[in-house]
Amino acid sequence: MKFTCTQIALAKAINTVSRAVSVRTTIPILKGILMTVKDGRLTMSASDLDLSIETSIDVQASGEGSTVVSAKLFGEIIRKLPNSLVTIEQEEGKLNIKCIGSDFSIVSLPAEEFPVIGGVDSKNFIDIKKEDLSDLIKKTVFAASIDEKKGILTGCLINFKPENIEMVALDGFRMAVANKDASTGTDRRIIVPARILSEINKIIADDEGSDSVSLVIEDKKLEILTEDTRVVARLLEGEFIKYTDIIPQNWKTRVVTGREDVLSSIERASLLAKEGKNNLVKLSISEGSIDISSRSEEGNVNEHVGADVQGPDLVIGFNSKYLLDVLKSISDEEIAFELGTSVSSCLIKPVDGKDYTYLVLPVRITVA
Amino acid sequence: MKFTCTQIALAKAINTVSRAVSVRTTIPILKGILMTVKDGRLTMSASDLDLSIETSIDVQASGEGSTVVSAKLFGEIIRKLPNSLVTIEQEEGKLNIKCIGSDFSIVSLPAEEFPVIGGVDSKNFIDIKKEDLSDLIKKTVFAASIDEKKGILTGCLINFKPENIEMVALDGFRMAVANKDASTGTDRRIIVPARILSEINKIIADDEGSDSVSLVIEDKKLEILTEDTRVVARLLEGEFIKYTDIIPQNWKTRVVTGREDVLSSIERASLLAKEGKNNLVKLSISEGSIDISSRSEEGNVNEHVGADVQGPDLVIGFNSKYLLDVLKSISDEEIAFELGTSVSSCLIKPVDGKDYTYLVLPVRITVA
Repeated sequence: MKFTCTQIALAKAINTVSRAVSVRTTIPILKGILMTVKDGRLTMSASDLDLSIETSIDVQASGEGSTVVSAKLFGEIIRKLPNSLVTIEQEEGKLNIKCIGSDFSIVSLPAEEFPVIGGVDSKNFIDIKKEDLSDLIKKTVFAASIDEKKGILTGCLINFKPENIEMVALDGFRMAVANKDASTGTDRRIIVPARILSEINKIIADDEGSDSVSLVIEDKKLEILTEDTRVVARLLEGEFIKYTDIIPQNWKTRVVTGREDVLSSIERASLLAKEGKNNLVKLSISEGSIDISSRSEEGNVNEHVGADVQGPDLVIGFNSKYLLDVLKSISDEEIAFELGTSVSSCLIKPVDGKDYTYLVLPVRITVA
Repeated sequence: MKFTCTQIALAKAINTVSRAVSVRTTIPILKGILMTVKDGRLTMSASDLDLSIETSIDVQASGEGSTVVSAKLFGEIIRKLPNSLVTIEQEEGKLNIKCIGSDFSIVSLPAEEFPVIGGVDSKNFIDIKKEDLSDLIKKTVFAASIDEKKGILTGCLINFKPENIEMVALDGFRMAVANKDASTGTDRRIIVPARILSEINKIIADDEGSDSVSLVIEDKKLEILTEDTRVVARLLEGEFIKYTDIIPQNWKTRVVTGREDVLSSIERASLLAKEGKNNLVKLSISEGSIDISSRSEEGNVNEHVGADVQGPDLVIGFNSKYLLDVLKSISDEEIAFELGTSVSSCLIKPVDGKDYTYLVLPVRITVA
């Protein structure tokens, strides 16, 4: 294997596949990047078994072959080389890297030991705009559980309907549901680890190709294809919670308010809530306004925010973190809170439409 | 105490004095900011006993007085308030903060318990340009020891001569000496903790006042005055090392080379040196070039850099960190290395002039 290409192209490809390199693995080969040169293309692959990434770039090849090198060391070297042509040559057990006055030789491992990522046979592609996929991920992924013991709750449900895609995540305290119109031509439900969706979101953000990606669903994996990159994500197996059952269908009190105003008021109120239990903030809703208050040994705060309120007054407590996560993940100017009693869950929705529905459980408070 | 001022002015003043707030102290009052309103000015002070900072801003005052509040909480609140007018009022044991819809009340402590920073009586000001003071600090401070047990070596010597200021730091492995022309009208030597000089550098960088600062030297403290801010630094007591004695006066081999080229080559070579002992890189100096090499279990590297070499060939080893610290702290396009044997110290100097002199001890290597 011998090839020449620009430092920039090489650094970009390493950056892409490195997202699948596990730093904590005890299997040395999984800390590596597989490089294969064939037909004038360099293909780099990395896999932590849950997530596999493969990306290709054009190179000036003068010898084909495959080898595996440490992702960390190879990445550091290439990133620090000057913006010039880099020539890479494989020798027995080592890889030589040359660029202007730099001459590296680093240990390499046999390509045969690298796990096979495997292709997907299906011809059933679902095309989705990158920004739509990214938006679905951003609006839901934070609500999944980060506790590995929670199994299925560490994943996001992706519900493909013929005319739309719905993504759902919940951790037992809050739930996020996001929707996008999309012609999928299918009716399937899969569960993808939230951690992997976050990585996929970064990969599509970095990808400079076309505006859309193709999804291919298989029994145990989801494949995402851009022009030069293929991402294979392992699916979670099991039954997802019947989430539609837990969304209240009726509200008693509805509050429409400015998202940024209520976001910064809750942020400030949580400066005093932080020290206490549950990051507790109290929302006192009455005609024309929400008052957000909290107290700790260090002091107390009341934040007054104007709002359009329908229905009876209500005092309800929340973990401020759950409200802030929601308010930060959306960009609408105005939002609606739909509430029942002080012990029933609160919905946060767009003023019109149904792009998203968030559900947050209240924290029981002793009303003074 | 009651006053109104803009959120921006208040946040800026808190930012300045917070540099003197110790986060690790067990003395609660030292985690606080002293606020005093008098004659239409708000003065904020903070002190960790080694470093004290006092800054003043104009406010619309409607009541004088003093109080102490938690620097962390007060700072977080003010930073998160909208860019508007803030009204602050002292009550018994608490401080009220009002801004548009926000209404905070936080615990305050009696001003009497706050340590007195104390003024400096001297009328002997030494004026120095901010950029000169900043440059002296940046060029030396990194070479001081960070090991608190090393006493005097954790400080920088400031050597005031009638016509120039010299700053010196050393940690036993390397030394930094920087010079600036300045009319000081004095001949004194003081030692200031390097940590405090780093903070002073940040304060003068943030200060928007005039181009120069005034220094006042007292027996046990150094005072730095800008238009609105007064910084008092405790001096280290003791005898500084006779550093002029350890600077070699003659070289055998002199190398002039591009600073950025040799910096990035050493950075790359140190990618393989990192894993080994002492971050060892080997410099092989011969006619027209320096070759920088290193090796570890992961591989090896040779970096070839063109250079203008006078004197005999030389092979010498260094801890790459010490060379990198020096090369990053200066901005000259070209620099000169002055060397003796493979076991004598190396000087790094400007090609012309004597703005700085760095000394780096070599690491003994077994030349293959």
